[in-house]
Amino acid sequence: MSQNTLPIGIFDSGVGGLTVYRALHDRLPNEHFIYLGDTARVPYGTKSLATVERYAIENSQFLASRGIKLLVVACNTASALALPKIREKIGLDVVGVIGPGGRKAVELTRGKERPKIGVIATEATVASNAYYEAIRRASDSAEVLQKGCPLFVPLAEEGWTSEPETYSIAAKYLEAMKEFHPDALVLGCTHYPILREVIQQTVGEDVKLIDSGEATAEEVEKLLIEKGLSNPARHAGERHLCDDLDHFYVTDAAERFAHVAERFLGAKPSKLEAIEVYGVDELRQKPER
Amino acid sequence: MSQNTLPIGIFDSGVGGLTVYRALHDRLPNEHFIYLGDTARVPYGTKSLATVERYAIENSQFLASRGIKLLVVACNTASALALPKIREKIGLDVVGVIGPGGRKAVELTRGKERPKIGVIATEATVASNAYYEAIRRASDSAEVLQKGCPLFVPLAEEGWTSEPETYSIAAKYLEAMKEFHPDALVLGCTHYPILREVIQQTVGEDVKLIDSGEATAEEVEKLLIEKGLSNPARHAGERHLCDDLDHFYVTDAAERFAHVAERFLGAKPSKLEAIEVYGVDELRQKPER
Repeated sequence: MSQNTLPIGIFDSGVGGLTVYRALHDRLPNEHFIYLGDTARVPYGTKSLATVERYAIENSQFLASRGIKLLVVACNTASALALPKIREKIGLDVVGVIGPGGRKAVELTRGKERPKIGVIATEATVASNAYYEAIRRASDSAEVLQKGCPLFVPLAEEGWTSEPETYSIAAKYLEAMKEFHPDALVLGCTHYPILREVIQQTVGEDVKLIDSGEATAEEVEKLLIEKGLSNPARHAGERHLCDDLDHFYVTDAAERFAHVAERFLGAKPSKLEAIEVYGVDELRQKPER
Repeated sequence: MSQNTLPIGIFDSGVGGLTVYRALHDRLPNEHFIYLGDTARVPYGTKSLATVERYAIENSQFLASRGIKLLVVACNTASALALPKIREKIGLDVVGVIGPGGRKAVELTRGKERPKIGVIATEATVASNAYYEAIRRASDSAEVLQKGCPLFVPLAEEGWTSEPETYSIAAKYLEAMKEFHPDALVLGCTHYPILREVIQQTVGEDVKLIDSGEATAEEVEKLLIEKGLSNPARHAGERHLCDDLDHFYVTDAAERFAHVAERFLGAKPSKLEAIEVYGVDELRQKPER
């Protein structure tokens, strides 16, 4: 099998990465995907560096063992903390969501002498300063304001995308951001695109919202072309989110995953399996019995 | 060392069990405690039966290996799903929070011909029907209404105990409960006592709120007396929550745990250690090297 026809691997700590899957799927209709949601160990945002690295490596090795041509780390926390270790362990191109999200923000504010860029994310991602650093690497004149919004994740999973409570909580979290009035605001958590409407209305219609998943899909497209890895196959029929060309794995509670997937994507995965990823590396190194 | 002077073990999926620790500490000032918060694998509420059992057994074995005279399972999900397996694996008295919470509700509504009892909990606890069954075992005439309130946990951890958004979300979740107008309402999640005020005001001052942690502390007191296991020691000075007679372990992110502990209890643990509990059983069975 040629490299080109292999799927793209995506892992996330849970269900949030489905917004990244959606962005990749929309931009790259010729590709197919293997998605791993580490639902047994979600969330990563409250865990230590060592733990996140360990989980990220186990997930990456699982996906690598299925045969993929490129790995997308959809989880912001894992992208912030574990990219170097993942690259060290698996011999594949690895794309995280933070670099693309940060670079896109700078690109969209080009022309401003001193672009103002806001970042909203989980508290762990904010504390890691990863977006700040990605933005400053792309523009050393950018002014950056970061803000953690812990309740946005459970609100998105609850499906409260237009409730007055959600607007009220957004107004509270984004008070200083509104005052800062950024040129662009990075949605630095995979769940936040689900609340896009609320966030846009709260900060004002003139603020450009950046979905890190969409920015990542753009960079993945460029990378595939650059490396000659695009899938030439044209699928006979139309492609749909969650159709049977894409394979979904979770480490626990497949039913709940399918339920939230439907809430986020409007469709349940056709192919969904619960698996274990613990110690994949050790298992692979053992001689077969 | 006599059994009596051994500590009581408490485990929870994370930080919520601190409300159960507080209840035990307040009622049993002669006892000391070992608390394990499985912060690396929190939350349990969205995980499968097999996974929750495995985690619960690992936690129980860790605490048993430190020398305890009794085990309290503070986590509602683990109490609902894993008590039989834990009892099978460790040779100690094990007390969960669901039986005591359910029995207390029935006790407080005694005299009513058809007591009406409400239960609010995580979606997993509600789906397990464990409170419903505990209540019906104690009173086969009780009418029970259960309701999952997923946002209460992140609201409690965020410390939003009197924000208007919290009242508004509570009003939404508890609309049918208010109409049901229970005689007693069980706070069936360790986090919910932190939002006690909001919940009381929302359902009405005449509804008796039952803190499962407090009900559990009462039953633990009775059990210690019955088994002759009470600690006779009178501590020289006054005891304080989180003082150095109590030992806290977490499986990850000790700093965040200390932070939320302060929010919940008004004090940070004096003795707090991060440890691993994975495969404690296997490790103990290996010969020492």
